Amino acid sequence: MKSSGESKVIPCSDYTFPGIERKEYKEGSGNFKAVCRYGLLGSGEGEEALNFHTRYFEIEPDGYSSLEYHRHPHTVVVIRGQGHVMLNDEEIPIDVHDVVYVAPDTIHQFRADRGDYLGFICVVDRYRDRPVTLTDEELKGLKANEHK
Amino acid sequence: MKSSGESKVIPCSDYTFPGIERKEYKEGSGNFKAVCRYGLLGSGEGEEALNFHTRYFEIEPDGYSSLEYHRHPHTVVVIRGQGHVMLNDEEIPIDVHDVVYVAPDTIHQFRADRGDYLGFICVVDRYRDRPVTLTDEELKGLKANEHK
Repeated sequence: MKSSGESKVIPCSDYTFPGIERKEYKEGSGNFKAVCRYGLLGSGEGEEALNFHTRYFEIEPDGYSSLEYHRHPHTVVVIRGQGHVMLNDEEIPIDVHDVVYVAPDTIHQFRADRGDYLGFICVVDRYRDRPVTLTDEELKGLKANEHK
Repeated sequence: MKSSGESKVIPCSDYTFPGIERKEYKEGSGNFKAVCRYGLLGSGEGEEALNFHTRYFEIEPDGYSSLEYHRHPHTVVVIRGQGHVMLNDEEIPIDVHDVVYVAPDTIHQFRADRGDYLGFICVVDRYRDRPVTLTDEELKGLKANEHK
């Protein structure tokens, strides 16, 4: 990692960031599969000026992120592979360099369901609410209620 | 562009975003060359919940962005090609998927000076100060003063 004052370059090597710890997506188990994360910028020392966090998430083929919603929005840029994003009732294919806006309270999930990895940069507010996760059963329940 | 409520996917096609206007980097002329920009997310209708703006900048081979500084920080992710970033006195090579943190008041410039395009996502606060641009002569003057 090369730097000047607090400014710096975080090198990437084949979709890994050698200076940054590769972490589990979330602690414990839950409604997700085969996802890892790198906290790239925003939470480290010397990065206090950033009002947003930049993370890289990578989902292995056949994996998926939590089905969840929250008040804070997401900005996502796909940098590896392809898959789908669920945005409420819509299942939309995404490919490398596509940009996704997840608006507040949108139920969403990222899926590496097209035979490839799905890797994406995701930017969020530094101060944000906790996600509410849903099981598939809960999602069905929500939908059933909507149609009553 | 496919959407659900305010959420949406902005498709990318060969480093262009067909639903988004390709703009000049800055109005008028100045200390930059062969740079274009796409305002991807944050300033459009329905994107008011975003506290940050996501832009894509692309510099043609031999082009460069303004030499400038400002109080707000930048988070940059290279998604095309290679080049260099100037961070104060450091000239650091950058390649695809490298991540750059430009801390407050760092004098910086992006250069496509390695025979390739340099394209990058750049995220900034929605509310931010205006950049102060420097000519090469002014930079030399700053450096001369530092060494007095």
